[in-house]
Amino acid sequence: MKELRQKALNLHKKFKGKLEIRVKVPLKTKKDLSLAYTPGVAIPCLEIKKNPNLIYDYTWKGNTVAIVTDGSAVLGLGNIGAKSALPVMEGKAILFKKFGNVDAIPICLDTQDPEEIIDIVKKISPTFGGINLEDISAPRCFIIEKRLNEELDIPVFHDDQDGTAIVVLAALINSLKLVNKKIEEVKIVINGAGAAGIAITKMLYKAGARKILLCDREGIIYKGRKENMNFAKEEILNYLYESKKGSLKDAIKEADVFIGVSGPNLVTKEMIKSMNKYPIVFAMSNPIPEIMPDEAKKGGAYIVGTGRSDFPNQINNLLAFPGIFRGTFDAKAKKITDKMKLAASQAIANYIPESKLSPSYIIPSALDKNVVKQVAKSVKKAVIE
Amino acid sequence: MKELRQKALNLHKKFKGKLEIRVKVPLKTKKDLSLAYTPGVAIPCLEIKKNPNLIYDYTWKGNTVAIVTDGSAVLGLGNIGAKSALPVMEGKAILFKKFGNVDAIPICLDTQDPEEIIDIVKKISPTFGGINLEDISAPRCFIIEKRLNEELDIPVFHDDQDGTAIVVLAALINSLKLVNKKIEEVKIVINGAGAAGIAITKMLYKAGARKILLCDREGIIYKGRKENMNFAKEEILNYLYESKKGSLKDAIKEADVFIGVSGPNLVTKEMIKSMNKYPIVFAMSNPIPEIMPDEAKKGGAYIVGTGRSDFPNQINNLLAFPGIFRGTFDAKAKKITDKMKLAASQAIANYIPESKLSPSYIIPSALDKNVVKQVAKSVKKAVIE
Repeated sequence: MKELRQKALNLHKKFKGKLEIRVKVPLKTKKDLSLAYTPGVAIPCLEIKKNPNLIYDYTWKGNTVAIVTDGSAVLGLGNIGAKSALPVMEGKAILFKKFGNVDAIPICLDTQDPEEIIDIVKKISPTFGGINLEDISAPRCFIIEKRLNEELDIPVFHDDQDGTAIVVLAALINSLKLVNKKIEEVKIVINGAGAAGIAITKMLYKAGARKILLCDREGIIYKGRKENMNFAKEEILNYLYESKKGSLKDAIKEADVFIGVSGPNLVTKEMIKSMNKYPIVFAMSNPIPEIMPDEAKKGGAYIVGTGRSDFPNQINNLLAFPGIFRGTFDAKAKKITDKMKLAASQAIANYIPESKLSPSYIIPSALDKNVVKQVAKSVKKAVIE
Repeated sequence: MKELRQKALNLHKKFKGKLEIRVKVPLKTKKDLSLAYTPGVAIPCLEIKKNPNLIYDYTWKGNTVAIVTDGSAVLGLGNIGAKSALPVMEGKAILFKKFGNVDAIPICLDTQDPEEIIDIVKKISPTFGGINLEDISAPRCFIIEKRLNEELDIPVFHDDQDGTAIVVLAALINSLKLVNKKIEEVKIVINGAGAAGIAITKMLYKAGARKILLCDREGIIYKGRKENMNFAKEEILNYLYESKKGSLKDAIKEADVFIGVSGPNLVTKEMIKSMNKYPIVFAMSNPIPEIMPDEAKKGGAYIVGTGRSDFPNQINNLLAFPGIFRGTFDAKAKKITDKMKLAASQAIANYIPESKLSPSYIIPSALDKNVVKQVAKSVKKAVIE
C-alpha cells in the first residue's frame, strides 16, 4: 500500500495530469490558418447559425462528454470538494478516451446546490455532446439526473447509478444461467440505498426481477418507515417486494442473490449460510467488500463477485460507460433510454459464451477493449430499432 | 472566396472538430489502472484536500485554460450565439496548443447575462488554471473581465482587449523607432470604442502615450457628450487628450498615428494626407480595413499595418496570447498584470533587430513560433522581478 501510494503520486506528478489537448488539423502554413481559423472558420459558424444541428458535423461536440462532479461523493472518500475531485475526473476522462475513443472533459463545480448545478450544466452544454454525472451524493444526484435528462437535448448519464446497474445486471444474468434460476423468481437483497442501490433496484426490476428487498443502515426499507427516509427511498418502495420491518440479517434469509453497495464487513458467513441454494454474492464495497470472497465461500456462496481487480469476477463500471457513450454517439441518440441500458447489460453478459461461463468467470475483464465494441454496437442497434 | 468556403467546410467536416483529448499516462495493465484510477488516484485527491495548491502538481489545471464565450461578438459576425461560436473557440484552442503548448477547452455559454457568466465561470474554475474570455461584446466584457480578475484566484485574460492592445503596442514601438518619434509626444487617433479600442487606449497610456483621441460612430468621445455613451466610454475620458466635439476627420488632422478597430472603408486618402509627417496607419478592421494599404500609401502613409495575412505588417493576436499564458503558467502567476502585458509587447517588438526594421517589417510573422518563446520568457521574467 505504501508503494502504491508513492507510485501513484509519482505518476501524477511526472505527467502533471493525465490528459492533454491534441490538435487534429494541419496548422503549419498561412493557408492552414486561413481554413482552421480566420477567415475560413466563419463559414462553419454561419452554417451552424442557419442550422444548429450542423454543430455535430463541424465541431467536436458529437464526440465530447463533460464529466461533471461537485466533489460530494468521490470514490470512497466522501465529500472532498471540487478541487480534490479533479484527479478522479481526469482518470475517468482517460478511460473514456482509451476504451471508447470518447473525448471527455473534467468539469469540477464549486457548488453543491442542485439547482445551481442543473443551471450551470445546462448553460455550458452547447460545447458538449453528452453529460456524465460523477460522484454526486444521493439523493441529490437523482434530482440532478432527472431534471437534466428532461431539460437538455443531449444524453445524460450518471455513472454511479446507471453504469453500476448495467454491469450488475450483466453479472446477474450470467450467474443465473449457471444456477439455472429465473430473474423473475429469485429473491434479491440489495444493501445500500444510495445512488447505486436505488439504480440497481430499478434496473433489475425493469429486467424482470420482482422479489427485491432493499436495505440501508436502518435495515429493510418498508412502507411506513419513518427513520432515515428520503424521496428516493419513498419512490423506490414501488419496486420492492413484501417490504416489512427487519434487519439485513432478516432480509437475507432464503435470498438467492445478495448485492452489496454499502460498506466493509457488513455480511457474515452465517448470513450467507441462511441464503437459498447456490447463493450469488456481489460484495462490491470498495476497497473492502461487505464480505471477503473466501469468507463468503466458507458460508457456501456459489458465485462471488467484488469491485476489486485482485479477485475473480470484478464488477467494474469500465465495462459499461465507454461503450454506452460510444454507441449513443455513433447512433446520434439524444437520450440514453432503458432499452439502450438493457442492451448494454445483455451485450456484456453475452460477451462470454455459455460454454465458458463458470462461478469464477461470470463477467469479462475490464481491460478487454472488445467488450466496449460489443456494448457500443448493441446500444447503437437498440437506438435504431 | 467560394473555394475558401468549400475548403473550410470540408476541413471541419472531415475532422469533426479540430481538437481531441490525448491520454498522457500508460493505461494497458491492471497496474497502470490501479495507479491512474482506483485505488491509486485516491492518494493525489487526499493530498490536494490537505493542501489545495498541490492541484497544480497532480492535475492538468496548471496548463489548462477555459476559452469562455457567450457568442455575443464573434469575429466580424456579431451576436451569433453559443453554438455557432464553437468553431472559432476550437480554432483558438488549437492555436493555444500548437503555439504555446497550452491546453485550452472551449466553453460556449448559453447565457448573455454578465452576472450569470461571472457566476458560472467562477463555479467551473476549479478545473482550469486560467480563463481566456473571447468574443464577448462591449461594454459587457469590461464588467466580466474586471469582476473575474478581482474574484478568481487564477489569471483572467480577454484576448479581444488585452491581446489586441499588446500587439498594437508592439507594432507602434517599432514604427516609432523608424520615424524617430517618442510615444509620449505623438498624437494618436483610435477609431472604434469597443473591447479593442478601449483596451488599446489604456495600454498605450500605460506605455507613456499622452495625446490620445478616441472616436466611435458619433465622432470624438469628449467630456459631456450625451449620445451613445456607456460607463466604459465615461471612464476612458481620463485617458484622453483635449477631447472635444468633432468628427473622425477632425480628429485625424495632424495625427502621427491612426489605429482603426472599427469598420471597412471609414478612412479616406484625403484624411491620411491631413496627418502629420510620416503617418503610421494601423487599419485593422477585418476582413476589410478602414483603408486599403495602397490607398493609404497614396495618401502618404509611411507605415501601414492591417489584420490581414495577405498584406505586410499583420497585427495578429496570435503573437501574444499563447506566449502570455505560457509565460504566466511557467511562472505560476495568479494574475496577468500590466507589467507582464508591457513585457509581452516589448518582447514582440524586440524580436526584430533594429537593423532589420523597415516600413513593411515592423512586426514578426504570426507563424514564427520563436516569438511565442520570447514572449513567454519575458512574461515569466516580469513575474519574477
